[in-house]
Amino acid sequence: MNQDSRLSRVRVVLVETSHPGNLGAAARAMKVMGLTDLVLVNPRCTIDAEARARASGAADVLEAARIVASLDEALADTVLAAACTSRRRDLPHPAFTPRQAAPEMLALASAEPVALVFGSETFGLSNEQLMKCRWLINIPTNPDYASLNLGAAVQVLAYELRAAAVDAVLPLPEFEPAPHAAQEALLLELEKALVTVGFHDPANPKRLMPRLRRFFAKAGLEKEELAIWRGIVAAMGQHRG
Amino acid sequence: MNQDSRLSRVRVVLVETSHPGNLGAAARAMKVMGLTDLVLVNPRCTIDAEARARASGAADVLEAARIVASLDEALADTVLAAACTSRRRDLPHPAFTPRQAAPEMLALASAEPVALVFGSETFGLSNEQLMKCRWLINIPTNPDYASLNLGAAVQVLAYELRAAAVDAVLPLPEFEPAPHAAQEALLLELEKALVTVGFHDPANPKRLMPRLRRFFAKAGLEKEELAIWRGIVAAMGQHRG
Repeated sequence: MNQDSRLSRVRVVLVETSHPGNLGAAARAMKVMGLTDLVLVNPRCTIDAEARARASGAADVLEAARIVASLDEALADTVLAAACTSRRRDLPHPAFTPRQAAPEMLALASAEPVALVFGSETFGLSNEQLMKCRWLINIPTNPDYASLNLGAAVQVLAYELRAAAVDAVLPLPEFEPAPHAAQEALLLELEKALVTVGFHDPANPKRLMPRLRRFFAKAGLEKEELAIWRGIVAAMGQHRG
Repeated sequence: MNQDSRLSRVRVVLVETSHPGNLGAAARAMKVMGLTDLVLVNPRCTIDAEARARASGAADVLEAARIVASLDEALADTVLAAACTSRRRDLPHPAFTPRQAAPEMLALASAEPVALVFGSETFGLSNEQLMKCRWLINIPTNPDYASLNLGAAVQVLAYELRAAAVDAVLPLPEFEPAPHAAQEALLLELEKALVTVGFHDPANPKRLMPRLRRFFAKAGLEKEELAIWRGIVAAMGQHRG
């Protein structure tokens, strides 16, 4: 397999990156494994000479990077967003190793874009940003020194995706996953409806919405299911007994 | 598994490296995966401020690196030397992917040192150097752009060794699944509530409940989630707007 179109649908989203060298390293790490779709969310640096030097022959990937103002914008058309983070136990998401995650990410990328999301070098991803992702990916590291460089983390993930792509031909997914923006909108409407029916008190939220997010993440919302849940939520919010 | 002594017996041998940044990146890539034994054969650069900056918290690995004058010296006490190279067909060695090579390298490292050998950024390894190694390791790359950065190559190999050491699988977070009877009861109550809010017509069911069953099955209902959904369904069924 030379070029695998699934790899071209794996987007790398770098959030608030500080170091130009890491932008370049990420671009090179991507291209060497056949990935090309790079999106920068609020970069804290510019694509400068150092970035281009580190990108080496992948300067095309770097120059083609889209710069956007929010994570939602970066993820809008994706059907799966996986946050690469060393955090785990305090979060409600399903968490996988790169090896566990790669085959399903690739399968989904047969039809629609999927995203790997990486936080800033210093602060990682905020809780709010993490909650916009369906999966966590934890790269196994030395517990005494877990400080993986950003470019190196992109390299490991891109490598696992390529390894999965050349490993076997996977069956196509038999369902159509719902896009990110529609899922976010549904969860917002669900929250409103839960307030309307008196189950949810935004002044005393008790982690209700994070738990429901996790539940929907585990299920993996499909387009047809999205339509059903929209109907349920609308009926719930409008019902007058 | 915190520290695996086998990883401490995997030596990284960098031959005639030109760029100080790559020395630092290699040291960081090693330490983050639990490797510590770094040997530099005739480096073409010094361990300078750039090297230390790229090493970040792995400056100890960098400072402890041994500098030797020949590959033979670097490999003297090892029981296996594997050359990381993109070359393959013109050489007589057994060639493996990182994933194929990692388990046996680790097994050998239970007792004696083994080595991963990386050539210079520009020239790779000479034939003479390659012939001193028993195995070749080929990292799968994009055939149109196979130029893997040296530090990134060290990262991929170190990652594969750690993944083999921890068996590639992180323990999944623990949760308590909801019992069958409680799930069935919930789905019955949900159906009633959907009738109450006017979303579901039992005379014209349109496969709604089988679809919702499938959604809940995909999510894998947990006890804590069961309590949440019971509350939502009760609020939905009783709500008088």
